[in-house]
Amino acid sequence: MNRARNRAAQLKLMAFDVDGVLTDGTIWYSAEGEVFKGFSTLDGHGLKMLRDGGIELAIITGRHSKALEKRCENLGITRLHQGVEDKRAVLETLLAELGLEAAQAGYMGDDVVDLPILTACGFAATTADGHALVRERVDYVSQRAGGRGAAREVCDFILDAQGKLAAQLARYLGDTA
Amino acid sequence: MNRARNRAAQLKLMAFDVDGVLTDGTIWYSAEGEVFKGFSTLDGHGLKMLRDGGIELAIITGRHSKALEKRCENLGITRLHQGVEDKRAVLETLLAELGLEAAQAGYMGDDVVDLPILTACGFAATTADGHALVRERVDYVSQRAGGRGAAREVCDFILDAQGKLAAQLARYLGDTA
Amino acid sequence: MNRARNRAAQLKLMAFDVDGVLTDGTIWYSAEGEVFKGFSTLDGHGLKMLRDGGIELAIITGRHSKALEKRCENLGITRLHQGVEDKRAVLETLLAELGLEAAQAGYMGDDVVDLPILTACGFAATTADGHALVRERVDYVSQRAGGRGAAREVCDFILDAQGKLAAQLARYLGDTA
Amino acid sequence: MNRARNRAAQLKLMAFDVDGVLTDGTIWYSAEGEVFKGFSTLDGHGLKMLRDGGIELAIITGRHSKALEKRCENLGITRLHQGVEDKRAVLETLLAELGLEAAQAGYMGDDVVDLPILTACGFAATTADGHALVRERVDYVSQRAGGRGAAREVCDFILDAQGKLAAQLARYLGDTA
Repeated sequence: MNRARNRAAQLKLMAFDVDGVLTDGTIWYSAEGEVFKGFSTLDGHGLKMLRDGGIELAIITGRHSKALEKRCENLGITRLHQGVEDKRAVLETLLAELGLEAAQAGYMGDDVVDLPILTACGFAATTADGHALVRERVDYVSQRAGGRGAAREVCDFILDAQGKLAAQLARYLGDTA
Repeated sequence: MNRARNRAAQLKLMAFDVDGVLTDGTIWYSAEGEVFKGFSTLDGHGLKMLRDGGIELAIITGRHSKALEKRCENLGITRLHQGVEDKRAVLETLLAELGLEAAQAGYMGDDVVDLPILTACGFAATTADGHALVRERVDYVSQRAGGRGAAREVCDFILDAQGKLAAQLARYLGDTA
Repeated sequence: MNRARNRAAQLKLMAFDVDGVLTDGTIWYSAEGEVFKGFSTLDGHGLKMLRDGGIELAIITGRHSKALEKRCENLGITRLHQGVEDKRAVLETLLAELGLEAAQAGYMGDDVVDLPILTACGFAATTADGHALVRERVDYVSQRAGGRGAAREVCDFILDAQGKLAAQLARYLGDTA
Repeated sequence: MNRARNRAAQLKLMAFDVDGVLTDGTIWYSAEGEVFKGFSTLDGHGLKMLRDGGIELAIITGRHSKALEKRCENLGITRLHQGVEDKRAVLETLLAELGLEAAQAGYMGDDVVDLPILTACGFAATTADGHALVRERVDYVSQRAGGRGAAREVCDFILDAQGKLAAQLARYLGDTA
């Protein structure tokens, strides 16, 4: 865990996969095609705290969904990359744009297609129910499942590794900390 | 548990968070934004029994949802406070309105944003899957998860602490109690 | 279990609650009110086998839902009693109609409001995640949760108690039984 | 497991049931009838890898759903057989069409109605939460539940048994394998 904390301490950009990470991996279809996605309220607050802690947020996903666009609007996430075939290439573009090195970027994904970007990042995370081959290869595996607070756990972990969690929580804990 | 029972025994107002407490914390988005919420039938009956037991009910939530409004109509809950930034302030307004003291009010929430209202109340509760920092700081942690009967457990607990559960159940148990 | 089997062996009518029994207890609301229900495909097949085994089926529920009507149409269940305040009274009407005694009727419910009908029946069943007070008072508690095959388990149990399960399965098992 | 691997190694056609296998078995009804289905993103990728590995894919299901048609379009699955009463007969037609023997075909199903096709196939699989009578009679029972990656596990297992998994993963694992 110390290695994971050291890696998380360097982050200035954290990117997330959607299906299986910000959702439980269920793709909901009606006669009109994919219709909705289920996101976690715990994750939502974690993403806000991460951004308030000075970390750039990004979404990099292979699929395309209007529901995701609405959720990102709601959370104020503007770096939304959908329908991505080569996630690693998108990461590299983001690094160039932000003037960051790979060690300063993290990714959370749940399937083998995420391995190229996960292994290119300074900090790699997955969910409790991510694919076994991914769980074996990342720095951090959340205890919670995708869509059930997995991303929140990672947000808390990064903020804590950077010594910023206490400040984020101070406004809620007051005298009771 | 005795401390929690003593605290629950004082309650004249019980307020609930929505996402993660009355639901499992999933926020459902379609292309139109948030579209529906999933509530528990067990919770519904608990809330009715609590009100029948003479406890004022309130909902205090940071989000805004038409689905919640419909569920509250269905349950006859009129003290519905949505889009709340400062939950503690709403609690104080309710206390003033009802002529109650903080020790007579309870709240059930699941995330760190709920800590200010939870610590201001006489009785604080959370769910089995609430955030760890909340679970460490409340009087009562339900065995059931949010949206899966967590609130019902709290309703039963409060009624029992007030010596009112048996009366509520008598009409169902008849001779078989 | 022998007592439960003996009771199940007498059944000529089996009635089911809906929310929490044929569903997982989640009530889905949108801006238009309750919008859909999730039923189990395992349960569907169990209900068909039960009817094929000569047991009358009925649904007795306190709520009202168009989704339930569609599911009943799909399953060919015509004895659908919705919006019921007094389930026991409906049972008695059904018994009179069918010329049956209480010992020949069963009910599966999950909450304390179901106790009057459950205790009036010859065979009472609930789900793994039913209310504790119900689980303590019924003949049979399924291992599966509501909406996850709980009702199927009860259907199989009744058919088996009546010595009819093997015949129902014979068409599927063929030489492999 | 060796027997299962040997059987999986022969496959040139793999067919799947839908409800309870590619979904968690929940049938979602609204006032309009069945409205949507929830599929797993993990399964989706597994099905693509299986096809890329040279295995023919088919869906054989007793129900009928527009949502399923959309999901199959999305995955590029063209052998979609819905509303099937006799699954074994459909399998035989497929075998004739493709010039295959039964030992070269597999099926994954979750309920007793699937036993005739399961026992007719060279390789039979079910889910962790499939019916007990099915779990006792198949070659492979997944550790994951239906709709939660059960089919993916089977896809990985087949590819591995055929010595094709490493090649499929090589593009993702690169130097890190």
